Amino acid sequence: MASKRFTLKALAEITNSKLIGDEKHEISGVNSLEAANTNDASFLANSRYEEAMKKSNAGVICVNHSTLVFEKKNFLISDDPSRAFQKIAELIISAESISGFEDIHPTAIIHPSAKIGKNVNIGPYVVIDRNAHVENNTKIYSHTYIGPNVKIGSFCIIYSNVSIRESSQIGNRVIIQPGAVIGSCGFGFVCDKDGKYQKLQQLGFVVIEDDVEIGANTTIDRARFNHTLIKKGSKIDNLVQIAHNVEIGENNAIAAQTGISGSSKTGKNVILGGQVGIAGHLKLSDNVMVGAQSGISKNLEEGKYRGTPAAPISEWNREYVLQRKLYSYVDRIKKLEAKIEELEKEN
Amino acid sequence: MASKRFTLKALAEITNSKLIGDEKHEISGVNSLEAANTNDASFLANSRYEEAMKKSNAGVICVNHSTLVFEKKNFLISDDPSRAFQKIAELIISAESISGFEDIHPTAIIHPSAKIGKNVNIGPYVVIDRNAHVENNTKIYSHTYIGPNVKIGSFCIIYSNVSIRESSQIGNRVIIQPGAVIGSCGFGFVCDKDGKYQKLQQLGFVVIEDDVEIGANTTIDRARFNHTLIKKGSKIDNLVQIAHNVEIGENNAIAAQTGISGSSKTGKNVILGGQVGIAGHLKLSDNVMVGAQSGISKNLEEGKYRGTPAAPISEWNREYVLQRKLYSYVDRIKKLEAKIEELEKEN
Amino acid sequence: MASKRFTLKALAEITNSKLIGDEKHEISGVNSLEAANTNDASFLANSRYEEAMKKSNAGVICVNHSTLVFEKKNFLISDDPSRAFQKIAELIISAESISGFEDIHPTAIIHPSAKIGKNVNIGPYVVIDRNAHVENNTKIYSHTYIGPNVKIGSFCIIYSNVSIRESSQIGNRVIIQPGAVIGSCGFGFVCDKDGKYQKLQQLGFVVIEDDVEIGANTTIDRARFNHTLIKKGSKIDNLVQIAHNVEIGENNAIAAQTGISGSSKTGKNVILGGQVGIAGHLKLSDNVMVGAQSGISKNLEEGKYRGTPAAPISEWNREYVLQRKLYSYVDRIKKLEAKIEELEKEN
Repeated sequence: MASKRFTLKALAEITNSKLIGDEKHEISGVNSLEAANTNDASFLANSRYEEAMKKSNAGVICVNHSTLVFEKKNFLISDDPSRAFQKIAELIISAESISGFEDIHPTAIIHPSAKIGKNVNIGPYVVIDRNAHVENNTKIYSHTYIGPNVKIGSFCIIYSNVSIRESSQIGNRVIIQPGAVIGSCGFGFVCDKDGKYQKLQQLGFVVIEDDVEIGANTTIDRARFNHTLIKKGSKIDNLVQIAHNVEIGENNAIAAQTGISGSSKTGKNVILGGQVGIAGHLKLSDNVMVGAQSGISKNLEEGKYRGTPAAPISEWNREYVLQRKLYSYVDRIKKLEAKIEELEKEN
Repeated sequence: MASKRFTLKALAEITNSKLIGDEKHEISGVNSLEAANTNDASFLANSRYEEAMKKSNAGVICVNHSTLVFEKKNFLISDDPSRAFQKIAELIISAESISGFEDIHPTAIIHPSAKIGKNVNIGPYVVIDRNAHVENNTKIYSHTYIGPNVKIGSFCIIYSNVSIRESSQIGNRVIIQPGAVIGSCGFGFVCDKDGKYQKLQQLGFVVIEDDVEIGANTTIDRARFNHTLIKKGSKIDNLVQIAHNVEIGENNAIAAQTGISGSSKTGKNVILGGQVGIAGHLKLSDNVMVGAQSGISKNLEEGKYRGTPAAPISEWNREYVLQRKLYSYVDRIKKLEAKIEELEKEN
Repeated sequence: MASKRFTLKALAEITNSKLIGDEKHEISGVNSLEAANTNDASFLANSRYEEAMKKSNAGVICVNHSTLVFEKKNFLISDDPSRAFQKIAELIISAESISGFEDIHPTAIIHPSAKIGKNVNIGPYVVIDRNAHVENNTKIYSHTYIGPNVKIGSFCIIYSNVSIRESSQIGNRVIIQPGAVIGSCGFGFVCDKDGKYQKLQQLGFVVIEDDVEIGANTTIDRARFNHTLIKKGSKIDNLVQIAHNVEIGENNAIAAQTGISGSSKTGKNVILGGQVGIAGHLKLSDNVMVGAQSGISKNLEEGKYRGTPAAPISEWNREYVLQRKLYSYVDRIKKLEAKIEELEKEN
């Protein structure tokens, strides 16, 4: 894997750290304390991991000034070891992962009416449709389709094979993993008297605010009217379904394979575990936390919930314990019945 | 968003409606009664919403002849206000959303043996393989792959980044949202005595009948032999899994993230909620309705079902109520035990 | 569908079988015993199906030497009828399904630093990035993106619209269905004191060993450090989510829409049903089997499990039976209460 090598002397300068150890030692990778070998840099994120640090074979460990260092190991001491490590990681690994296709690839098809900002990177075979805008410093990977009237802010990363349909509006620093679909038609039909479904035109669009991340192969439907909205800072994992007219509040974290039905809304800082299902037209308050695989069928006030249909976590725990003991209660009922029979005979 | 503007006079003519109000007022958008502003057209779908109509700020409201109209608001009166509204929506919004790439884009690669009908629209970087047929008036968006021997009917819309593998047969007026996969290999293996899996060649194909809609990133596997079949008029939401040899009946509605295992069949007008799972080789009768997140492990007669394993909805409701009260029954058992002990002492 | 026709005489030679029947009869398709017509070949996989064989309308049936053959039907007798049938299927159906785009299509973009082996087939509009390696006899379909530093072994099939991000390492004979995403960023964030999420750079990669199959639109995330690992021979169905740092053991079978959270590990020959969810940092032993829709929240020893949270199958069965009878136990409690009241009165 490794391609670049840096001496500890060089890394100390680059990360503005004080070096304890062998300045000629070379680093060509990064890893966790447990898995690092002598060619790897690692870091101590938290004093809880000091024991792992002592056992680590890392070629150098980024630590802060209060960490007790010792001989035989190499250390880079700084105010912010996490940032120092990140810098090293970017030097070594990110360099490796950079695409060989820079600037705007000659095979990218950009409609004459589209507007592209400065320092935008557009990969091979990208298609950008009529009247789309892409702002400065955004990067779009191969085979991605940007539909008509789509707006994409600055410093975004849109990976390969993404489809962004017409009129979607995407903020700044948004990351969209490969294969995601933004702006597909909402699942809206009317059933006629013969049981046949007629499609309702989905006339709205999708708005994704700043600093959102959308996972691989996740789907976000356009609204019937108005917009489906993902507010700033929210992070959505892979294979998640966001239906038409949903509103996701600020700084939500939504784990993989969760589905949110039409017109439901979440508050700020909501956390949804994986494979959660939320019915339509519901409201989840700020700070709601929902355990994995739960099914939400009514509005939720702030708190933790679990189960299908979801209950407050304390109720769920109580019921779960009782259910696992059902057989013992049945036994107790049988014993009571026997005793009653005995008593009845005696009477 | 808005780009085109129409006076109410013009809209009255276009929609063949009678105008009550200011014929010079201009409309540049469409919206629901609640959300519309003075530049938006809206419509009264149902007399239930008359209260919303009275409060609406819409610039014009499409209504039928029996609606009570009043001053200070603008109305377009016609026999079919829903159709009138749809026409306005198409004028304003759909115009905006039309791709700037028309006809057959020069970068589309069409194998010499493929046959393409009249008035077909093929986007940039579409690939159409050997012996595929695409009939008249169908539209295929960028980066979609149409495999060998695939047949696609007329008036279909196939969005971007769709993969349709070999020999799939698709009817007329079928809509396929972005990222969907049609004709992937069924999950068929035999396990040998060493626990290793050998792939069973998946020799069948997928048939999708007329007027079906397939959601974004949904997957429909080809059959081992014969075909996997989606009958006419059925609507399938995003991220749904349809396994090999499944048969979906006419006019089904299948919500997002549901999965149907190999060789199961549904009747007509079946409705499946989101995240439902159906085991293999089962049969669901006509008009079955299954609640979200349910798990189906046996054949179902006509009716409503819920839960995992699914039960008729009335049974599920009864059990759910009892389960939520389990703690109270445990209390009652404890009280009985105390009383029995008391009675035993007395005897 | 059919395009090629073969006489039974020709098929007997090609499959090295003994023909009983009409050597001039022509075959142009393959099918199961039940569905085959007189133009189809079929086969008897197991003596259990002899009744189906007798009723079959197949034009010829591949059987082994111990099968009782009879007049009026055509048979191809060999040591391995399954293999003979497979050969016929490949002649007839696979021929049909072969892409018309051979070798390396002129529109494939291959970075000058990438290395491509012999007899590699690269479809239209494939993009292969910096320093990627593709070994001999591998086939890559249209619109697939192979990122920088990716290694792909020999005899692999990578279907259309697949995204394989940087540094992924893929073994030999791996099959990846359309739309799958390999190497997307893990869902890793730290929440700061204001409730905002900061992205943790995902510095690891994905390793897929030999003979693995990955389903359509399945997503496999790269690791934070180190790698996410799919060991040899494992088969993963459609729409499955494999999170960062997961390790899937050898010869697992993982059904559609299952999700495995970060850093969990499975042993050898583990079988997971559809829509299963597995929490993070867990370990499933060799030979664990988990029923569909189950939720796993703790480590599992060898055995069969079902439910959410999952229990050993025998416990789950016991609880399920009791739950379905809850109403009867409640009735018994009520009767006991009435009798006790009676007894108390009498005392």
